[in-house]
Amino acid sequence: MDQPLVKAVGEENARYLMGKLRSTEGFPRPRVIFRDIMPLIADAKAYRILLDGLVSILPAPPSDFDYIGGLEARGFLIGAPLADRLGKGFIAFRKNGKLPPPVLREDYQLEYGVSSVEVEKNLIKPDSKVLIVDDLMATGGTAVAAARLVKRLRARVVGFCFFIELKGQGGRERLAGSPVSTLIQFPEKA
Amino acid sequence: MDQPLVKAVGEENARYLMGKLRSTEGFPRPRVIFRDIMPLIADAKAYRILLDGLVSILPAPPSDFDYIGGLEARGFLIGAPLADRLGKGFIAFRKNGKLPPPVLREDYQLEYGVSSVEVEKNLIKPDSKVLIVDDLMATGGTAVAAARLVKRLRARVVGFCFFIELKGQGGRERLAGSPVSTLIQFPEKA
Repeated sequence: MDQPLVKAVGEENARYLMGKLRSTEGFPRPRVIFRDIMPLIADAKAYRILLDGLVSILPAPPSDFDYIGGLEARGFLIGAPLADRLGKGFIAFRKNGKLPPPVLREDYQLEYGVSSVEVEKNLIKPDSKVLIVDDLMATGGTAVAAARLVKRLRARVVGFCFFIELKGQGGRERLAGSPVSTLIQFPEKA
Repeated sequence: MDQPLVKAVGEENARYLMGKLRSTEGFPRPRVIFRDIMPLIADAKAYRILLDGLVSILPAPPSDFDYIGGLEARGFLIGAPLADRLGKGFIAFRKNGKLPPPVLREDYQLEYGVSSVEVEKNLIKPDSKVLIVDDLMATGGTAVAAARLVKRLRARVVGFCFFIELKGQGGRERLAGSPVSTLIQFPEKA
């Protein structure tokens, strides 16, 4: 297994973690392979390895940021414990209509249609620095939308950290300009 | 302030925490007071006090349960770091259609209509013990639905732990039979 994960947590832990990641074909749409982190999160050892791994690949040292920003809802499962471990506040980027006003909203493109992500106004101090975390990067659309919200909060994104990267969908290109770390990349290189 | 929170974290920390909890009237519906934890979670110190407080009021000792179960999405912000702190796996109870099959589903009553909560089948070992965590208990409807799902996973609920309790809405009564801990109760007693 040639993955950043192996360097981060060692071969044995990497194999244990990957053994808990479930792939389901045809969900939520035909021909999609859904990478399901729930069995991994439900396993205390795998969950710990995942969080240890993410801490060890942070694209910026903890002293360089004030907040972890996470995307509803799987990003909460990863970002919230990271914020707790690192002693940071957590910024929740939520789906449309979940947060009380006043909110800031950004739209982003889906494969079919448009979705949006919101954050509360006045949530953080201006000039703060934010690390954005999520379980998976594909096109990078939601991460870009969250980054635009960080700017509208008058703060700055110091980097992005993902568990899984789906290659060839343009995520790296869209997030260019900020450092990006990922633990696993699909499809795997030979 | 006469709240379990004061005993759990001390008067000064309790005041700090409460100062970060925002109340918005009329969201998501007229005449509702929405208790907004996002400014609290975004503040590293308040977030730590909240998690410290919850750890100190657990309705069962950590040695008595194997998993923390949390409800999408605010329950993830509380339950996931607790699972990490206590070295437990995390069971995600999600809204309809978010989890890949096979899933178990339970309906529950809303003020207007019915909603449902799902969990993945075969996620945990039978005979496991689960602590259910959420940000707020009002009618207890979602917590009861999650508890029914735990039983259908052939596991057992050892208790419930909430940050906020809205009194007089029947939550305690519905959850009777399992120990319930809450840090803050609204409306406050005189």
